[in-house]
Amino acid sequence: MQSKTLQQLADHVGGKIIGDPDIAINSVAGLDNAKAGDISFLTNAKYEPKLKGTQASAVIVAEEAKTDAALLVAEDPYYALQQIVVLMYGHRKNKPVGISDKAAVAETAIVGENCNICDFVTISDNVQIGVNCYFYPGVFIGPDTKIGNDCIFYPNAVVFNDVVIGDRVIVQSNASVGQDGYGFATHKGFHHKIPQIGKVILEDDVEIGSSCAIERGTLEDTTIGKGSKIGDLVAIGHGARIGPYCLLVPQVGISGSTTMGHHCVLGGQVGVTGHLQIGNMARVAAQSGVMTNIADGQSVLGSPAVDASKGRRAYTLIEHLPEFKKRIKALERKLDKLESQK
Amino acid sequence: MQSKTLQQLADHVGGKIIGDPDIAINSVAGLDNAKAGDISFLTNAKYEPKLKGTQASAVIVAEEAKTDAALLVAEDPYYALQQIVVLMYGHRKNKPVGISDKAAVAETAIVGENCNICDFVTISDNVQIGVNCYFYPGVFIGPDTKIGNDCIFYPNAVVFNDVVIGDRVIVQSNASVGQDGYGFATHKGFHHKIPQIGKVILEDDVEIGSSCAIERGTLEDTTIGKGSKIGDLVAIGHGARIGPYCLLVPQVGISGSTTMGHHCVLGGQVGVTGHLQIGNMARVAAQSGVMTNIADGQSVLGSPAVDASKGRRAYTLIEHLPEFKKRIKALERKLDKLESQK
Amino acid sequence: MQSKTLQQLADHVGGKIIGDPDIAINSVAGLDNAKAGDISFLTNAKYEPKLKGTQASAVIVAEEAKTDAALLVAEDPYYALQQIVVLMYGHRKNKPVGISDKAAVAETAIVGENCNICDFVTISDNVQIGVNCYFYPGVFIGPDTKIGNDCIFYPNAVVFNDVVIGDRVIVQSNASVGQDGYGFATHKGFHHKIPQIGKVILEDDVEIGSSCAIERGTLEDTTIGKGSKIGDLVAIGHGARIGPYCLLVPQVGISGSTTMGHHCVLGGQVGVTGHLQIGNMARVAAQSGVMTNIADGQSVLGSPAVDASKGRRAYTLIEHLPEFKKRIKALERKLDKLESQK
Repeated sequence: MQSKTLQQLADHVGGKIIGDPDIAINSVAGLDNAKAGDISFLTNAKYEPKLKGTQASAVIVAEEAKTDAALLVAEDPYYALQQIVVLMYGHRKNKPVGISDKAAVAETAIVGENCNICDFVTISDNVQIGVNCYFYPGVFIGPDTKIGNDCIFYPNAVVFNDVVIGDRVIVQSNASVGQDGYGFATHKGFHHKIPQIGKVILEDDVEIGSSCAIERGTLEDTTIGKGSKIGDLVAIGHGARIGPYCLLVPQVGISGSTTMGHHCVLGGQVGVTGHLQIGNMARVAAQSGVMTNIADGQSVLGSPAVDASKGRRAYTLIEHLPEFKKRIKALERKLDKLESQK
Repeated sequence: MQSKTLQQLADHVGGKIIGDPDIAINSVAGLDNAKAGDISFLTNAKYEPKLKGTQASAVIVAEEAKTDAALLVAEDPYYALQQIVVLMYGHRKNKPVGISDKAAVAETAIVGENCNICDFVTISDNVQIGVNCYFYPGVFIGPDTKIGNDCIFYPNAVVFNDVVIGDRVIVQSNASVGQDGYGFATHKGFHHKIPQIGKVILEDDVEIGSSCAIERGTLEDTTIGKGSKIGDLVAIGHGARIGPYCLLVPQVGISGSTTMGHHCVLGGQVGVTGHLQIGNMARVAAQSGVMTNIADGQSVLGSPAVDASKGRRAYTLIEHLPEFKKRIKALERKLDKLESQK
Repeated sequence: MQSKTLQQLADHVGGKIIGDPDIAINSVAGLDNAKAGDISFLTNAKYEPKLKGTQASAVIVAEEAKTDAALLVAEDPYYALQQIVVLMYGHRKNKPVGISDKAAVAETAIVGENCNICDFVTISDNVQIGVNCYFYPGVFIGPDTKIGNDCIFYPNAVVFNDVVIGDRVIVQSNASVGQDGYGFATHKGFHHKIPQIGKVILEDDVEIGSSCAIERGTLEDTTIGKGSKIGDLVAIGHGARIGPYCLLVPQVGISGSTTMGHHCVLGGQVGVTGHLQIGNMARVAAQSGVMTNIADGQSVLGSPAVDASKGRRAYTLIEHLPEFKKRIKALERKLDKLESQK
C-alpha cells in the first residue's frame, strides 16, 4: 500500500478535486469506517446522508455534495474507486516459485515462460499453458487442456481434460471445471451414464468462483463468454452457453443447454431451467426461478419468474392473501344476504 | 472415437433403419449442430420441427418421421443414444499409473489388484479397497473406510472415516462424503458439537457430483441407495436415507433424517426439510420447498410445495394478484353502493 | 466407545433415574433403531408415541413418561444426549503425525507446539499457528494468516492470506475462507476486478461447513462471530458480519455488507440480500428470501420474506388462488345480475 496525494489520485482517474489537492491519502475505506487519511466513496444516493458524518479525508463522488471531506468528482465513482484501490494496493501478489519439485508436471505438457507451479499441483499429459500463469497448491489440470496467458488457478481448483481456457482467466479455490455433466439415460429403471464428450470453454477474462461446478457438455460444449464473472457455488449445466460480460452472483444454477446473451445479471440463488434462451442484458432478481425465455433487456423476478414490472407488486401481495380471503368471504355473505332480500 | 456404419449402430442398439444402412457415422451431435457424417437424436416431440432442417446424416427416433436424414428407429431413443455414445467414444480413459510414489498409502490399508493411486492421494489406516479403483490426485480417503470394486474418485474428492462404498461408485471432484453432520445441542446460548457417530453408505452404482456435501449421521447412517445419481453442489443432511435409483439434480438440499423411496426425481435447488417421508417415484419440481410428506407417485411443486395438479395453476396466478386486488375492491364498492341504495 | 451404567450417565449429566440405575449402556441410538443396551432420547413431544415401542434400555427425557425403558430425566435432554455421546464415543480422533516431510511448511511460518501437519499441506510465509492444531492432507493456508489454538482443518480446506482465526475453530473439507469477494466495477460494459483488501475473521469456536465459500471483504473485513456454526455449501459475501452464536444451515447465502446480530437461526437455502441489518435472535425459515431488515427476535418466512405471524398462513393460501379466482368471478357475475335487475 502506497500513500498518495489527492491530486495524484485525481490525475490517475481523470477526476476533479473540490478541496485541498495535497491531502495525503493512506488507505481506502467505506463512509462509516473511514478515518483521517482515508479516501471513501459514494456510489449510491441512498447513502448520501452518511457523507456528512464521515471521518474520511476525501470522498469520491459523482457530483458536488456537502461534506467536510475533500471531494474527488469522477464521472463513474465506482470505477474510480477500483482504479484507486488497484493503484494503492495492487492485486494479490503471488509468490514467485518457478516450477516446484513437489509438483507433478507431465513430460508431454508444454508450459510457457514465467509460469509458477506450486507444490502438489498436477499438470497432466499434453496440457498446453501460455506464459505468466500461476498454479496454487493442489490444483489439478487434466490431459489435453489448453490454457492461455496470465491465468491464475487458486488452491485445489480442478480443471478436467480437454478444457479450453483463454487469457487472464481466474479459477478460484475448490472450483471444478469440466467434470461430467449430469447426463443419464433411464432405461427400465436404471440410469445409464452418457459419456460427456463436449468440452468446457472459458473465454478471456472469465472468473470462476470458489466451489463452482461447471459441467462439460454432453455433445456440445459448455461456454462461459469473454469477461463474464461467475460467483461462488454456482452450478452451470452441460452445454449451457453463458454470453460475454454476464454477472452470475453466488449460488446461481443454470440448467443444461440454456443459452444466455451478453451483459446479463443474475442475482443470488437464481435457478434457470434447461433449453431456454435468455436475451441480452436480461436481469433476474435474486432467488427467481426462470422457466420461460427472457427477452432482450427484460427484467424478471419471482418463482415462477414474471416480468418485474408486474411481478414486484404481485409477489408482495402474497402477504395479503389472508385478508383477500376474508374480503371475498365477506362479499359472498353480503351478496347472499342481498339476494335473499330480493 | 471410431467411425461406424449406420447398420453397425442399429445392430448395436437393436434398432431398425429407414434409409441407407451403409452411411458412415463419424460422430454424434444435436439436431442443430449436426453436420454430414453425424448421427443425431430426437427424444422430445417439442423439437420435431428441427428434424427437417438438420444436416445430420442419420437421426435416432422413436418412430418414422419426415426428414432427409436416414432414420434409426429405436424403442427408447435416448437409451440408444447412450449406447451409441459409449460405443463410439467410450467412457473417460483414466491413465494407468499404478500406485504413485508421491501418494501416501498407509501400511495398514488393503488395496486390491489393478488399482491406480495418483500423486498426492492419501489412503488412511485400515482402508479396504477392492479391485480396479482409480484415485485421482488430491483425493483423501479417511481411516477404516471400505471401498468396493471399479470405483472412481476424481481430483480432490474427500471421503472421511468409516464410510462404506459399493461397486462402480463415482465421486466427482471436490465432493465431501462423511464430514460431520450439522449437529449441535444448544444449551444456555452455546452450541455444543455432537460427535457424529453414524456412517455414510454409498451403495453400488451411485454417483456423487462435484462439491457435494454428504454428511455422516449423528447416530444412524446416511445412505444413498443403489444406482442413485446426485448432481453437483447437493447437500445431504445427517441420517437422510435416499432410496435406490433416485435422481437429485444440482443444488438440491435434503435435511437430516428424511427418508426417500426409490426412483424419485428432484429438480434443481429443491429443498426438503428434515424427518419427512418421500414416497417412491415422487417427483419434485425445481426450486420447490417440501415441508410435508409426499405420497408414492405424487408430483409436487412450489414453495411451500403442493400437489402439482393444483400447484401449477396456483403459482402462475401469483402474477395476477394485483388484478385480483382491484377486482375485490371494485366488488366492494359496487356492493356498498347497492346496499346504500336499498 | 465405552460401556457405562445408567447411574454413571446420570451422574455425568446431573440427571435423575427412574428405573434400574445399574443397567449397562453400550451405545446410543434413536427411538426407532435402539435395541437392548442402547440409550435413546426424546426431545420433541411429536415423537412421544415412539416411546412405548422402543427397544432401548433407557431413554433420556425431560419429564416422567410411560415406557418399559428406564428413564434418565434431564433438564435439557438434547444437551444431556450430547454430553453422553461425547463421554461414550468422544470426538473424532486425529492421528498424531507431527509435521510430515511431505508437507510444505514455509521457513517463516511459526507453528506452535503439538501441531500436526499431514502430507500435502501448504503453510505459507509468515503464517502464525497456535498449539494443538491439526491440518489434514491437502489443506492450504495462505501467507500472513493467523490461527489460534486447538483448530482443525479438514482435507482440502483452503484458507487464503491475511485471515484471522481464533481458538477451537473447525474448517471442514473443501471449504474456502478468504477468497476474493465478488467485487467488480462495471465501466463501459467491462467488469473491472476490485482488489479485495478486507480480511476474513473467524472468531473462537466457529465451525465452517464443507464446500463453504467465505469471501474476504472489499474494504472492510468479513466476520463470523464467536461460536457461530455455518453449515455446508454456505456462501458468505464480502464484508458481511455474522454475529456470535448464529446457526446458518446448509446452502444459505448471505450477500455482501449485511450485518447479523447474535443467536440468529437461518434455515436451509435462505438468501439474504446485501447491506441489510438482521437483528439479534432473528429466525428465518428455510428457503426464505430476505430483502428487508429484520428486527430483534423477529421470525420471518417466504420469498419475499414477511413476518412469520402472517406469512405462514399467507404462503399456504397460494394453493387456493384458483379457487379465489373462481369466487371473484362468481361474485362479479352475481353482482352484474343484481345490478341489471335493479
